[in-house]
Formats: sequence, C-alpha cells, structure tokens
Amino acid sequence: MVLYFIGLGLSDEKDISVRGLEIVRRAERVYLEAYTSILMISHEKLEEFYGRPVIVADRTLVEQDADSILCSADTLDIAFLVVGDPFGATTHSDLLLRARSANIPTRTIHNASIMNAIGAVGLQLYNYGQTVSMVFFTEAWRPTSFYDRVKENRHVGLHTLVLLDIKVKEESWEDIALGRGGKGRFNKPRYMTVAQCAEQMLEVEETRGEKVYTPRSLAVGVSRLGSEDQRIVAGTLEQLSTADLGTPLHSLVLLGSRVHELEIDFIREFAIDKDIFNAAYHEEYGKEDGDKAM
Amino acid sequence: MVLYFIGLGLSDEKDISVRGLEIVRRAERVYLEAYTSILMISHEKLEEFYGRPVIVADRTLVEQDADSILCSADTLDIAFLVVGDPFGATTHSDLLLRARSANIPTRTIHNASIMNAIGAVGLQLYNYGQTVSMVFFTEAWRPTSFYDRVKENRHVGLHTLVLLDIKVKEESWEDIALGRGGKGRFNKPRYMTVAQCAEQMLEVEETRGEKVYTPRSLAVGVSRLGSEDQRIVAGTLEQLSTADLGTPLHSLVLLGSRVHELEIDFIREFAIDKDIFNAAYHEEYGKEDGDKAM
Repeated sequence: MVLYFIGLGLSDEKDISVRGLEIVRRAERVYLEAYTSILMISHEKLEEFYGRPVIVADRTLVEQDADSILCSADTLDIAFLVVGDPFGATTHSDLLLRARSANIPTRTIHNASIMNAIGAVGLQLYNYGQTVSMVFFTEAWRPTSFYDRVKENRHVGLHTLVLLDIKVKEESWEDIALGRGGKGRFNKPRYMTVAQCAEQMLEVEETRGEKVYTPRSLAVGVSRLGSEDQRIVAGTLEQLSTADLGTPLHSLVLLGSRVHELEIDFIREFAIDKDIFNAAYHEEYGKEDGDKAM
Repeated sequence: MVLYFIGLGLSDEKDISVRGLEIVRRAERVYLEAYTSILMISHEKLEEFYGRPVIVADRTLVEQDADSILCSADTLDIAFLVVGDPFGATTHSDLLLRARSANIPTRTIHNASIMNAIGAVGLQLYNYGQTVSMVFFTEAWRPTSFYDRVKENRHVGLHTLVLLDIKVKEESWEDIALGRGGKGRFNKPRYMTVAQCAEQMLEVEETRGEKVYTPRSLAVGVSRLGSEDQRIVAGTLEQLSTADLGTPLHSLVLLGSRVHELEIDFIREFAIDKDIFNAAYHEEYGKEDGDKAM
C-alpha cells in the first residue's frame, strides 16, 4: 500500500485538506511528527476530530525506530502527519528514503507552510532570498552563520524570512548539569519571540559590524500566521526588539532594498508607528528600485 | 462579515482544507480566480463537489469590476477561491487593499502552492534563492531579465525555481491581426513545458554568454506536482530540453552549487540517465561545499 506524508497546515485541526482527512480516517496507523514543529491545538483535540488514535512520533521514534513506522506499510496504508507541509522548512526525506529503499510507495499530501503563507504579510514571495534560522543564543553558543546568509540576500536586495527556534522536549538543564541526562525529564517547551530574534540580530550586527542591516532597517514580525488571531507588525528592528506579539509561533521578515512601493503600501498598515516607518523607509530604501542596502 | 481568500491547493477539488470547504458551503457568493492559474479539474466538477454555483472571475472582473465582488461583503460572507495559495506566486493584494479601504474584514485560508510544495523534489527549501518566471518567447519579445536573477542566485550557490508561463484567454491572433480584438474569441490555453523552458534558458545563455549555467548544468523538471500522477525528472538542461513530462502544469528547478550530497542522493533517483547525472554533478558541482558555479 502507501506511506502518506500529510501536511496539516498552519493552525488547527481544520487546516488539513479534505483528501488528507479521508486518508487519516482510513489508514491503518496514524503518526504525528511532534519534534520539529507544533500545532496550535492539543493532541487530544486532533484525535477527537479524526475519531481515532494518533501516535505521537518524537525524534527518537522517527530517527531510531523508523522501522516500526514502516512496519507492514507494504500491505497497509500508513499516515505520517506533519505540521505545515511535509517538505517545508524541515523535510522528512530520511523516512522517505527508507520507505523508498524498502520498496514502499509514498505519496505527499501538501499543505500550507510558513514558507509560502508568509506571502500574507504583503511582500512578494519571489522577492525573497534564502530562508535562515535563528537559534536561541546561550552563553557558549552564539552562532552567526545566519548573518552571512542575510548578507547574501541583502547584497542582492532580497527579503529574508527568519524562522525562529522552538525547543520541545529539551532535557532539563538541571539533569544535564548533574550528569543525569537521558532520564526523560524535560523542560517546558520554549518558543523564540520576534523581540528575541530582533535583539539577537542587532547583537550580531554589533559584533560583526559589516553593516548588513542597522537598528533602523525595516522588518515585519508575524505571530500565529494563518490562525484567526494572527498578528502582523511592521517596524524597525529596534522597534521589533521590544514588540510583544503574544503567544507562539513567531516569524520575522527583514526587508530587502528592492522592496516595491506597492509592498510598502501594503505593510505600512501594520506599522507600529507610521511616521517612524516612513522615515526609516526613506533613509534606507529610498524611492528608486535597485540595490541600495549594503 | 468577511471576504475570505481561500487557497485550493495544487491539484483537484479535494485539496481544499476542511475549513475552506466549510466557508465555501456557507458563503453568500463564491468566486474562482481563473486567469493566473488553473486547477487540474473542471469548473463543473468543483460546483458538484461544493454543491453550489461558482462564479468564474476572469481578469476583467477582478481588475475592473472588483466592486461587484465586494458588493454587500460588509453584511455577507464572500469567498474568493485561488488555485494554490492566495499569496503564492500571484498575490491578490489589489482586491485585498480594496476590501481594506472599504472596511471589509478579510481572512486568508492558506494552502499549498508551488512555492512550498516544490520541496517534494528533494532540494531543501531554504537553499532556494529568488523565484523567477519564464514567459513564452515570441519573435519580437525574448526578455532575458530572468537571466540576471538566476545569475544572482547562482553566484551565491542557491537553487532557482522557474515558474512557467501559462496563457489562458489569449485573444486569437487572427482577430488581433485583422483588427477584430475585443470580440471575446480566444485561443486554446497554452502551457509552457519543461522542455521549452530549458531550451529558452539555453538560448539566452548562448546570447548573453556570461556562463551563468551551461547545457551540462543540472536541473529538475516536475509536472502536475501534488497530483497522483506527478512526475519528477532530473538531468542536464540539455537533456531536459527534449524531455517529455506530459500534460501541464510544469515547473523547473536549476541546481545551485551549494547543493548538498543528501539532496543529490534524493534527486538521483529521478535521473533520466544516472551516469550522465553523476558525471555532470562531478564536473560542475564537485564534492566540497561552497561557491563553485560561476
């Protein structure tokens, strides 16, 4: 039969496609990938909506016990649910390749992911460069590789989508410090906010000092994209570093210099302060097309 | 009430989300945007599935008679259906801005679009640069602006998604030549194939000669992405310029030099000829990371 990779979309149980739901209801086993992303509803609500049990697949299961997922997939339909799209920010090519080498047919049921739904903020998708990820900085680990990629995008004048870190099932620091790792005790999930992201970006610009962007560079913060209470906020990185966009998930887009006047008209509606927005726009992005930033 | 922008996804009537379908069934009027994209099924099949009439919205209606779409949207729910995602390759910001200025609330129900579902070919979405469009060349009009953008992506080592032209509701050339335009007689729709796209790309490289890519550069062609009979084919641009991927829609991805070995392992399965694929890979992309192309 078939191993189905089914995208759940962005927000809640009703974002699944009609086709996806049909497959979930008739599949032999249903797994929910739950370590790279989160849905804004509970596992129980999902089971209730589907009218059937859903097995939560954490990283250990998918990476170390993939055979149990694939078990009897040659004779039965198996559904593997992924928040967003199965081949969005995180791909599940490993599981797909295992299925392929076991001669199990696969099919993907696509859905919206942050990678295309971000279009809703009003910046044209084809004006985006490569997507970057921002991780939680720690005392010891403050990686700046994102900065090089943003630099490449900004050099050409393109927008940059920044995906923000989430930490689910992190082992408790206390356990790790006391050498008691692997006990299955976990910290509460943590989700990076737009404010934290903007702050880290500004810190790295300060350190690296290559003028890839400034505190006055314009960006758009978005939270709970696709849900009824999604929020979109536009402003300078400095403004965003103190903006409160509420509960997760958050994402950020840094504007490129090729931004079109129509895009600006669209996002001005979301400005924290229209005067600051307009001033910052004229300072850095000017009025003509072309490569002005950097 | 609300003007809903509802994404239909990639393939047929069952790709709509459960939430989208609920809204369609209860909305006062339902429009289908039918000039920038096509669904792989008929308008009638859609009406049958929804159990209600669907008004086809061509370019004239949306751009010149938007008021009729917005009419009474302040008191009734209106649904505006868009193939793919409403803010995918083509955005409908104009209609949204009109609604905004008339104080009509809007909401977007996202879905998969080519911009994220292209992840299914096995190249990581965050390794893509800006997306480009390829139009049908005519005797008089052979625009090469796409080439400059591909150059920017290739310079950094990123993949490029090329969206291929579709011509729907083109006025008949005969009518235009005889000065009988505007009669509403249209040519059959035309959809660019992967082969035509690869051929035009090679022609422009020949003319411009900036070695942005060569006939041996690797690319992936895809047709009917997301449908049960989707096809994915990998090979050199030269090979793709004679490949037959069947019925529309087609898209193409040109590989960037930063391609990862795992991505190559994934797409090798789709190679027209594995030996040619491997040889072309080692010629241009080598084994190390970094900027080798260009």
